[in-house]
This record gives sequence, structure tokens and C-alpha cells, in this order.
Amino acid sequence: MSKKLDIQRLSLNQITTENWSLQEAIQGCTDHQIPVISVWRHKIAEVGLLEAKKLIAASGLEVSSVCRGGMFPALTASERKERIDDNKYAIEEAAELGADVLVLVCGPSPHKDLAESRKWVQQGIEEIIPFAEQHGVKLGIEPLHPMFAADRSVITTLGEANALQQSLGSSQVGVIIDAFHVWWDPDLYSEIEKAAGKILGYHVSDWKVPLPDIFKGRSMMGDGVIDLPRIRRAVEANGYHGPIEVEIINQAIWDMPGKESLELIKQRFLSCV
Amino acid sequence: MSKKLDIQRLSLNQITTENWSLQEAIQGCTDHQIPVISVWRHKIAEVGLLEAKKLIAASGLEVSSVCRGGMFPALTASERKERIDDNKYAIEEAAELGADVLVLVCGPSPHKDLAESRKWVQQGIEEIIPFAEQHGVKLGIEPLHPMFAADRSVITTLGEANALQQSLGSSQVGVIIDAFHVWWDPDLYSEIEKAAGKILGYHVSDWKVPLPDIFKGRSMMGDGVIDLPRIRRAVEANGYHGPIEVEIINQAIWDMPGKESLELIKQRFLSCV
Repeated sequence: MSKKLDIQRLSLNQITTENWSLQEAIQGCTDHQIPVISVWRHKIAEVGLLEAKKLIAASGLEVSSVCRGGMFPALTASERKERIDDNKYAIEEAAELGADVLVLVCGPSPHKDLAESRKWVQQGIEEIIPFAEQHGVKLGIEPLHPMFAADRSVITTLGEANALQQSLGSSQVGVIIDAFHVWWDPDLYSEIEKAAGKILGYHVSDWKVPLPDIFKGRSMMGDGVIDLPRIRRAVEANGYHGPIEVEIINQAIWDMPGKESLELIKQRFLSCV
Repeated sequence: MSKKLDIQRLSLNQITTENWSLQEAIQGCTDHQIPVISVWRHKIAEVGLLEAKKLIAASGLEVSSVCRGGMFPALTASERKERIDDNKYAIEEAAELGADVLVLVCGPSPHKDLAESRKWVQQGIEEIIPFAEQHGVKLGIEPLHPMFAADRSVITTLGEANALQQSLGSSQVGVIIDAFHVWWDPDLYSEIEKAAGKILGYHVSDWKVPLPDIFKGRSMMGDGVIDLPRIRRAVEANGYHGPIEVEIINQAIWDMPGKESLELIKQRFLSCV
């Protein structure tokens, strides 16, 4: 049997309460004794970075990550340079909010040559490593489910993320494991072992059949087919004991009253993760 | 530049004209000089195997494959036995229709232990190999896109299909490569090389953004992001020069007048595959 999960490891990934502002999400966490939050940049933008920083500081919440940097591939050098600049700004935001990690969603390919786009991803991360180091922010490469290869990320498996991490050869870079993206992979457990010591985050939701949507396709933990406790134990056995982000992109959950969804998340976190 | 594709390699996978009966699909192929067809079992069932055989024989069409066997994993031994029996019947159908290959969609897992289901897949194929051999029908393991892992196939990558083929160690078994299912894979081209000499079929469609649906998510060749000519050249370089099936599961294409869709398929086959 798995060790009982400590509620102190629960982090609300803010996209799970997409209808809430940053202030409302922070209030929700403090009201429901959720100790950690993952902040999205479009929510920071709504209030401004300084105000976001004040709100977080006043709440006492820990920030597990900022979502998201990445999106490196682009056809022209000047566009790729813009993406780099945007990533540097995201690193500053993460540093200001006291987040350890900037999550990298690496980006889709602007053309049919995926191999070239994967090189641009590597070059893009290489370019921001020194800046991330100066700001004390780790960079977490998050492989996305292959169904997002065309529009969100050419990095599609944990194997690919591990190879990229290794090739970059920097302790500033690690990987993020999101159960929804990787559960299907026959190499999942061997790749979690390869990621030992480099895991910067673990995200949970569930894969329900039929999938309610493609982008908004994630379900509440316990409502789907993913063996979440087994994946968590593997992640822990390979050195990650930090916050576990609940990241659910799902219209029906967005439309629930926030208080109900937070209570359900806490309950399922303890019983299904 | 790629060699011009010969229209004689075009096979209509019958699911592309799902609104048509077998008779209508055969008529469509002969009217439009499409020399090969891939037949689905639910369409055989509508007319009966003997009638299907007569219709195919009278048309002079070649049959590239029968779709589909597989679906091996099940919770009980008796259910798994039923699946084996059904696969044997599918092999008989393929043999009667003169198809070289039975396509195997290996099946989803009935529980959260994907590794066990993958073993059931291997055991299932092992059990039907002698029967397939007696009937002169090859078994084509088709890896499906990971987004179908929960409801259609635990075999999700060409790497996995190759490893399974190798582990089975029988020349009766090979792999089917469907561009829609595998295009995103960073290991695609190295795995096509590993599949050399064991490729039993190549299927085409396209991945359009946004995906119109999950199950009915495939688009006409040329309308999406897949580098079809590059994949075809790799498949050819590794020994496959047989029929190329156009397999498009898409409501809008199903709803087109069949004649229009066949003309469009021919045009795109020559210009985009």
C-alpha cells in the first residue's frame, strides 16, 4: 500500500480554477487550507506583477511553479529572439513570486520538420539557462501528450524530455511529469527512473473515457483510467517529494462553484493520488 | 524530390466511405479506377461473407487488408478466449477475400495495469499465429496514437509494435504504419528502419489543427501538418512498396458525395502523399 499522502503537498494549479482571478484563487487556497499554488502568467498579467507579488506574499502561500515559458520554435531568427525575451520575462516573474520552477511548454512546430523545431527548443533553452541561473529559477521541461504535438509541444514523451535535459547538461534544467500527458507510455517507469534527481514537479488529473474535449480534456483524479498512485510512488522513489499540482483543464470543473471544486480536489487528492 | 507516386498503389480503406455499403464502395473503386480496397468487417457482416467474396471477385479489386482483428485484453480467461475465436474468424474472412493482411488493433486495457494488458496482447497474437499461417494471412500490428490508449489500443508507438513483433519472432507477424498515429514520434524514422522487411501496410490521412474530433479526427491528405512524402519515402526505403491505404475517419468527409471524395482522394494521393 502507498503511504498516505500529506495534504501539505497539495498545490492548486491555477488553471483548475480558470474562472477565478489570482486574488480569488489565493483566497480559495487560504480558505480551504491548500498550502501551495501554481500561478499562470495570464492571471499575473490581469493584476500586474507587483500586485501579484503582494497578494502572494500576504497570503503566505508557497508558489510551486509559474506556468508557462517555452514556445521556442518559430520560422525566423527574430521571432525566436522574441520568444527568448518572453521566456526571460517569465523567469523574472517566477523569481519575483518566489517560484522555484518555470514550467516550459516547448511549443509546436511552425512547419513540417519536427526535428528542426526540436533543435530550436534545445537552442532556446540553452539561451535562457544563464538568465535562469542568475534569477535562481529552475526550468522544467514538460513533455505534453502527443495529441498536442501539432499545436502545443514537439516534446511529447518523458524520454524526449530526459534526452533533452541530458543533452543540455545543466543542473538548472529538469523535467516536469504530468500524469495526463505520460500515463500511456510503455517506457514511463523506466524514464521516471532515468529522470531521478531531475524531477522538478509532478502534476495530476485523470483521463476519462470518452475524453470530454481535446484541450479541455482532463478530468478529476479518480474519474479516469490513470494509475495515479503508482506513478506518484515512482516519482517519489526517484527523488521527488515536492508539491503535487492539481492541474485540470475542464469546462465542467471550471463551471463548478470554486469552493465545491476545491473541496472535491482535497478529497480526491487524499483518496486517489 | 520524391518519385511520383503510382496511382496503382492507391487503396481505399472502406472506413473512408463509411456511408457506403460494401457494394457501393466496390462500385466506387471500379468507377474511379481505384485498384485496391481495404474491407471492414462490419461491412462484410452487412452482406455476409459469401456475398462479400463474390462482390470482390467480380470486381477484380485487390484487397490490401481486412480491418480489424485484435482487441485481446479482457479481465477473464473466457473473455480472452472469445476474443481469440473472433480473431480466428477474422483470419478466415481475410483468407476468403484474398487479403494478405489482417490489421490488428490490439485493444484497450480493462483495468489500470497497462503492462498486464500488453502481455495479454502478446499472448493473444501468439495464439492466433498458427491459424494465420495455415490460412496464409499475415498479422499486422498497428500502433495507434496514444490518445486512443484508453479505449482502443495499449500498443501506442511503432517502437512498441516493433518490440512486440520481434518478441513474437514470427514471419507471420509484421507492423502497419499509419501516418496519423505515428507522425509525432521523435523515434519515428529510427523505428521505421527497425521495421525494415516487416512493414505490412502503410496508411495515410492528415492531422489538421484544430483536430475536428478525437475518433473522427482525421483529415484529407494535404490539409494537415504531417510530412507524408517523407514518411512514405522512409517506408519505401525500408522495403514496403505495396498498397497505400487512404483511411480517413471524418464526419465531413463521410458526408461528402462519395464520388467527390474519391476524386479528391485520387488528386491528393498524387499531390500530397
